[in-house]
Amino acid sequence: MHKTRVLTGITTTGTPHLGNYVGAIKPAIAESQDPGVQSYYFLADLHALIKCQDPKRVEASRLEIAATWLALGLDTDNAIFYRQSDIPEIPELTWMLSCVCAKGLMNRAHAYKAAVADNEAAGNSDPDKGVTMGLFGYPVLMAADILMFNANKVPVGRDQIQHIEMARDMAGRFNHLYKGEYFTLPEAVVDEKVEVLGGLDGRKMSKSYNNTIPLFVSEKKLLKLVRKIKTNSLEPGEPKNPDGCTLFQIYSAFASAEESQAMRRRYAEGIGWGEAKDSLFEYLNAHLREPRERYLALMEDPGYIEDVLKKGAERARAEAAPLMDRLRQSVGLGRFA
Amino acid sequence: MHKTRVLTGITTTGTPHLGNYVGAIKPAIAESQDPGVQSYYFLADLHALIKCQDPKRVEASRLEIAATWLALGLDTDNAIFYRQSDIPEIPELTWMLSCVCAKGLMNRAHAYKAAVADNEAAGNSDPDKGVTMGLFGYPVLMAADILMFNANKVPVGRDQIQHIEMARDMAGRFNHLYKGEYFTLPEAVVDEKVEVLGGLDGRKMSKSYNNTIPLFVSEKKLLKLVRKIKTNSLEPGEPKNPDGCTLFQIYSAFASAEESQAMRRRYAEGIGWGEAKDSLFEYLNAHLREPRERYLALMEDPGYIEDVLKKGAERARAEAAPLMDRLRQSVGLGRFA
Repeated sequence: MHKTRVLTGITTTGTPHLGNYVGAIKPAIAESQDPGVQSYYFLADLHALIKCQDPKRVEASRLEIAATWLALGLDTDNAIFYRQSDIPEIPELTWMLSCVCAKGLMNRAHAYKAAVADNEAAGNSDPDKGVTMGLFGYPVLMAADILMFNANKVPVGRDQIQHIEMARDMAGRFNHLYKGEYFTLPEAVVDEKVEVLGGLDGRKMSKSYNNTIPLFVSEKKLLKLVRKIKTNSLEPGEPKNPDGCTLFQIYSAFASAEESQAMRRRYAEGIGWGEAKDSLFEYLNAHLREPRERYLALMEDPGYIEDVLKKGAERARAEAAPLMDRLRQSVGLGRFA
Repeated sequence: MHKTRVLTGITTTGTPHLGNYVGAIKPAIAESQDPGVQSYYFLADLHALIKCQDPKRVEASRLEIAATWLALGLDTDNAIFYRQSDIPEIPELTWMLSCVCAKGLMNRAHAYKAAVADNEAAGNSDPDKGVTMGLFGYPVLMAADILMFNANKVPVGRDQIQHIEMARDMAGRFNHLYKGEYFTLPEAVVDEKVEVLGGLDGRKMSKSYNNTIPLFVSEKKLLKLVRKIKTNSLEPGEPKNPDGCTLFQIYSAFASAEESQAMRRRYAEGIGWGEAKDSLFEYLNAHLREPRERYLALMEDPGYIEDVLKKGAERARAEAAPLMDRLRQSVGLGRFA
């Protein structure tokens, strides 16, 4: 009996923030500790090149993300944790899949269509203005990421379901053309209950809104950011509605059910915003202090992170290399002998 | 002083024929022996997957082509001779270049435009029908083939000039974006005097016309094929015009100037077509006997060819790997340390 293989890619262009933690990192780390599942987590740094042509940003983000996941307890004995760019088999497979992937499939990809729509809205005569081959073709790279390890399940957001369907399409087509069961057809797993955290301005916390609270800032900076969270103008003593309040939402994403309940009562009793912010800060800070210390220690020791990722890459390539050998044989690119 | 680097890819979907020999292989092999040039010859077997999804055909073609070039005297001590699929850095570089290559550039590529035109002519509602991402994006792979070794010159046919210009475009864009002289801008070298040989039916000898004379068939088969070459209905004794005659054209592509002159006289004197065919066969056979023996011996010893290509791949990767390391650093995908 094979374990179920679950694969998660982490784009390396940003700095992990509270929203990432609650929505993605926390549940993924819990899964990494499940001995019944073989999880794969990878820094999707080849994908980062599509959006970010600032080498310093890509470099820093990779290190910050790796340190974050390790600091939060990613189980790298159980899960396989690697950098995409350390697996040369992935771009090789990307080419093989390109040769069985209809261009029409990519014409219909969301990210590409959105870029074309933007160009049309802006009145550009060239609908492909600013679109690179990386942006156009990245669902093929994503298919290679997934099929390389014959992942059964890929946890994704709604907007990514299409990519998994494309990977299934390429897998099926390759299996058919080359007459074999080379690839497992992956399934998208959409967690409908994903917690979306509000940011400083009340909109969804997101790098693109520039409204994030990074996970591992200093205490001082954390306090400053929490104090910037937008609230309404109710005075201390006036009862307040915790639902729809960003402060309460962040608090309850971290707190236990009982603690959240207690905080609800304090809202009803008219807690002042300053006090609510201080409580949130205290709570977050207590919760994040230990992993932050681990994070800072890890950031001081990139050589250790390199070793961890190198070991992960070795484990990943121990699976990727034999599959690539088989694929090379299957398409007529085997060795002579 | 660097030697000029000249790079030639050989597509591995067909069996080498007399037309390939005269037009491409012979001049390339002469160049391989020039100590003043660093030549790179590679079996473009990743490209083969675009057109050919018959693994046996791809496999056989790779072996036949490698054996042919070696039998004809390719100097593998001087030139670097390798299989594209043995160089994992090439697909890696392809991805990096994809991220700096405008999709619009590919929209204008000849092969893609021809496919769209065919679909339109056939009344297909989908202009991209039958177009894979491999066909659409292969100029990026070709750019990686060239830029990976910083080739100065790439001998190509007229129809390929566009691809070299695309490679220059990507090289220039990468150098600019990442602020360095990573890539040499390659130049297309178009040999205006390339000899195009006629085939069995008088049209250009080409696999796609199914009118070829393979280079290394048995004597018996060679005779049979030469006898099938189309001639006019002039009788023996009637003077014949050697210009425009496929028999004479093939003969003079192999013979010395004096021998060609002598054959011209025999045409004027009214040589019979049967006799002309026998003369051509005798001449070709004498010319090809030795390399054919070497070819057959090589085809019996694929392990030897594998070793030669493995050594070539090692030499190629000794150049490709350090460049890829530098490129990884430059885009933000370096190692942590």
